[in-house]
Amino acid sequence: MVQNTEILFTRRSIRNYKKDMHISDDMIEFIVDAAMAAPSARNRQPWHFIISRDRNKLNKLSEVHPYGKMLKDASMAVIVSGDLKIEDRESSLVQNCSAATQNLLLAAHGIGLGGVWLGLYPREERIVALKNMFKLPENILPITLISVGFPDESKPRNNNFNPDRLHFEQWS
Amino acid sequence: MVQNTEILFTRRSIRNYKKDMHISDDMIEFIVDAAMAAPSARNRQPWHFIISRDRNKLNKLSEVHPYGKMLKDASMAVIVSGDLKIEDRESSLVQNCSAATQNLLLAAHGIGLGGVWLGLYPREERIVALKNMFKLPENILPITLISVGFPDESKPRNNNFNPDRLHFEQWS
Repeated sequence: MVQNTEILFTRRSIRNYKKDMHISDDMIEFIVDAAMAAPSARNRQPWHFIISRDRNKLNKLSEVHPYGKMLKDASMAVIVSGDLKIEDRESSLVQNCSAATQNLLLAAHGIGLGGVWLGLYPREERIVALKNMFKLPENILPITLISVGFPDESKPRNNNFNPDRLHFEQWS
Repeated sequence: MVQNTEILFTRRSIRNYKKDMHISDDMIEFIVDAAMAAPSARNRQPWHFIISRDRNKLNKLSEVHPYGKMLKDASMAVIVSGDLKIEDRESSLVQNCSAATQNLLLAAHGIGLGGVWLGLYPREERIVALKNMFKLPENILPITLISVGFPDESKPRNNNFNPDRLHFEQWS
């Protein structure tokens, strides 16, 4: 059965958002549902999603993260975090939370939102700042920060294909 | 603009494949194109995709990887690798290659193939084995191994949503 893959090519990193727009609980549940549909090592699903729509928190996040200026106009931030009690291998947490992050960005794009992936892990100062801000327990490790809003820019379809990065049977 | 997100929920890890099936160059280019549409830190796109359809290599891979038995019947393996000359931070390579891996799995599913994500990084013995098998240069770091084939099993839509993993404004 063939399915629509267009979403994979039209998703772009969106950093400009319409101001004062609200993302509903239903929209959040939809995109987090998609994130939780990502694969994980031994299917442990070791993730947590911390949502912030609070204007003061978003403004603070825009200052805490060196590349987070766009959060000033974002409607929402999502901190994708791994649970070390469920999966004690940090590299698995990073890979699993990255797959979930990608699904979340695709789902957000799918319902007309736009987002951008901001790196947290492994930078200690960003991890500590986020853990303090959202009162995360010791075993919860923030991996990625996603800024989401209603797009105020449009970008063409992705055009990154580079045949030099495709190798058949051996390096060449 | 609302797009079709169904692919995110219907993708499942597929480990049973029809035997002796061939994946065409066009199909490979399509799913690698989707993989290269993933976001990357500072848009460096630090990835390489090593494709193997050689039966002997697939059989060997099924023995090299402790959870790789399904590669015996797979039509193809993809080794998603990071280039340390383009991006010297290993954690960024892991996150970028994980996003690309997820896009690749979604695109494969979209065109009627099925795949499963097998972990390589950071396990030294798996990395070394893959580097030797495919003669990868020193600066190329295998991150994930993907087994792909024509599905010989069907699985229901993903149903992983867990509201306990969704947190609003703070831990709770």
